[in-house]
Amino acid sequence: MHILIIGAAGMVGRKLTERLVADGGLGGNEVTALTLVDVVEPAVPAGFKGDVRTEAADISNSGEVGKLISSRPDTIFHLAAIVSGEAEADFDKGYRINLDGTRFLFDAIRLESVREHYKPRVVFTSSIAVFGAPFPEKIGDEFFLTPLTSYGTQKAVGELLLNDYSRRGFFDGIGIRLPTICIRPGKPNKAASGFFSNILREPLVGLEAVLPVSEDVRHWHASPRSAVGFLLHAATMDLEPMGWRRNLSMPGLSATVGEQIEALRRVAGEKAVKLIRREPDPMIAKIVSGWARDFDTSRAASLGFSAERSFDEIIRVHIEDELGGRLPD
Amino acid sequence: MHILIIGAAGMVGRKLTERLVADGGLGGNEVTALTLVDVVEPAVPAGFKGDVRTEAADISNSGEVGKLISSRPDTIFHLAAIVSGEAEADFDKGYRINLDGTRFLFDAIRLESVREHYKPRVVFTSSIAVFGAPFPEKIGDEFFLTPLTSYGTQKAVGELLLNDYSRRGFFDGIGIRLPTICIRPGKPNKAASGFFSNILREPLVGLEAVLPVSEDVRHWHASPRSAVGFLLHAATMDLEPMGWRRNLSMPGLSATVGEQIEALRRVAGEKAVKLIRREPDPMIAKIVSGWARDFDTSRAASLGFSAERSFDEIIRVHIEDELGGRLPD
Repeated sequence: MHILIIGAAGMVGRKLTERLVADGGLGGNEVTALTLVDVVEPAVPAGFKGDVRTEAADISNSGEVGKLISSRPDTIFHLAAIVSGEAEADFDKGYRINLDGTRFLFDAIRLESVREHYKPRVVFTSSIAVFGAPFPEKIGDEFFLTPLTSYGTQKAVGELLLNDYSRRGFFDGIGIRLPTICIRPGKPNKAASGFFSNILREPLVGLEAVLPVSEDVRHWHASPRSAVGFLLHAATMDLEPMGWRRNLSMPGLSATVGEQIEALRRVAGEKAVKLIRREPDPMIAKIVSGWARDFDTSRAASLGFSAERSFDEIIRVHIEDELGGRLPD
Repeated sequence: MHILIIGAAGMVGRKLTERLVADGGLGGNEVTALTLVDVVEPAVPAGFKGDVRTEAADISNSGEVGKLISSRPDTIFHLAAIVSGEAEADFDKGYRINLDGTRFLFDAIRLESVREHYKPRVVFTSSIAVFGAPFPEKIGDEFFLTPLTSYGTQKAVGELLLNDYSRRGFFDGIGIRLPTICIRPGKPNKAASGFFSNILREPLVGLEAVLPVSEDVRHWHASPRSAVGFLLHAATMDLEPMGWRRNLSMPGLSATVGEQIEALRRVAGEKAVKLIRREPDPMIAKIVSGWARDFDTSRAASLGFSAERSFDEIIRVHIEDELGGRLPD
C-alpha cells in the first residue's frame, strides 16, 4: 500500500514515519510506498525497503495538491498546519494553509474519485483548540465547537468538511482532536504551552526549566507515542460505527502542573524537581486559563483509542523513546 | 443609514424589505439608502423615500462582492443561499455559493475594515439544518453541530467564520438559525418541507392540499413575520452579552401535523380540514424523520427574540399578512 503523509517534517509526522518504517506495514498490509510531504522537504527515513518520495509542497496551491493525489495513495495522513500562534498573528496565512489547504486536499481527492473509482482513508489531525472557554469541567463528545482562535476555527471547518466529504462518499475520513503532546522532544520553545513539556524534559537531563503558571493549572495531555498510536488506529479501524460523526476527541490524561511535578519527583528524584524555576508570567497564565482541562472521551475509548493513564507513564515513555531507556548519570 | 440585503429577492428578503420601507428606520436610525441584491435583480420597493439600488450579483465572484462592500453599508443582511435540495444535488454549486460566497462577503468586509475603519453589523441566516439526527428530543444551545447535508455543512462553516471574523474585530456579526417558515406564502412547491405550509395555506382559500406523512410528525416552525422580527432584532440588539458565541437557534413552535390540523379546524372549520388529502409518501416521511423536532431556545429568549406560541397564532398571522385580514367567503 501507498501512504501519503502531509506534514511529514513535523514532530508527529517524523514519529509516524519512523513507526511505519519500523512496522513495515499498516493494518496487515505491507507498506510498499511512502510519500512524505511538507513545506520543507522531509528527510528520507532510514531503513525503509519500499519506494520513498520526499517533497516540498505548498498545500495552499491547488495544483500541487492535485499532483500529490494523482498518484492515488491508499491512506493519507493530513497533519500539516500553521500553528495556533502564527495563525492568530497572520490571518491570511492561517486561513490559506489551514482552511484552503485542507479544502484543496479534500477537493483533489473528490475530483480523483469522480474521475475513476478511488476512496482512500483520510486521517486528519484536528485539535482541542476547537473548544474555547467557558466549557464544562469535562468536555463531552456532544459539546459544541466554540473556538476562540482562528486556528481553532480553521480546524473546526476542516472537521465539518471532512465529515461532509466522507458522507458524500469521496473518501473515508476521520478527524482526531489531539491532546497537548507531552513530553514534546526538542528544545524549549516560546509556544504558550511549551512549559508543560519543558518542566519535565529539561530537568530529566539535568537542565533548568521555567514554570510560568501556578501548580493548580490543569490541562490535557498525551505522549508523542500515543499520538502516533491514535493515527495508526484511525488509519485502520472500521469507521462504520462512527456514522456521519467522523470527528472526535482523543483520550488523554487530565493532570495539574503539581501532579506533573510529583510524577517527576517519583521518576527522577528531588534533584530534578529543584531544577524547576518559578517565574510567574501573567500573560501565559491568562492564555492557559482559557484552555480545556479535561474531557470525557468515552466515545474514543469505545472505538478502541487509548492513551497513558498517569504522568509517571508519560515520563517513562519519554525516557524510553528519547533518552535510550535511562536517565543520564 | 445604508442597508444592504443580499438575497433580497427571496421570500424572507422581500418581506424584510417591505418592513424596512414601512418602518422607515432601523433601531431608531432613518434608513436613507437600500441596496437590494440577488442572483436576479430584486424589484424596487414601492413607497421608499431614500436611495434604492437594485442589482443582480453573483456572490461567488469575489470582485462583485468587493464592489458591493465598497459602498460601506452600515448593516448587511446575508440571506442568500442555494437551498438544501439543490446544494445536495449540485455539490460544486452549493459550496461555491454557500461557502465561497459567504467567505468572499466576510473577506470583502475584512479588507474594507483594514483599509479604513469600518465595522458594519452583519446578520447571517443560518439554519436548523446544521443539526442532523440522532439528537435529543429538545436540541439545546450547546448541542454540537451535526449536519447531514452539504447545505447544513456550508451553513455551519458560515457560522464558524462569522464568529471568528467578529472576534477579530472585522465586523459585528450574528448568525441566526431560522425554524422552518410556516405558513410559507405562494404556490405549493416540491421541497420536502412544503407540506407543512401547503396543508394550511391551500385549505384556507378553499383549495386541496396533499399530506404525505402521518399526523404524529413533529417539527419546528415560525411565521414569516417572526423571521423578519428575528432579523430586525439581530440587526439592532446589543451583541456584547453573546460573547464570542455569535450563532444561535431562534425561538419557534414545536408542533405535530395533527396539532397544525386542529388549529386549522379552530380557525377555518371542518370544511377546510376536509380539503387535506392523505397521500403517504415514504420518501418524504424518511427525509422528515431526520429533522429536528424541538429546541430549547432559552438563550434566544434571554436575548429578546420571540416567536408565535400556538398554531392558531401562526394561521392568524398568515390571514393578516397574506389574505387581507379575512378568509374568503
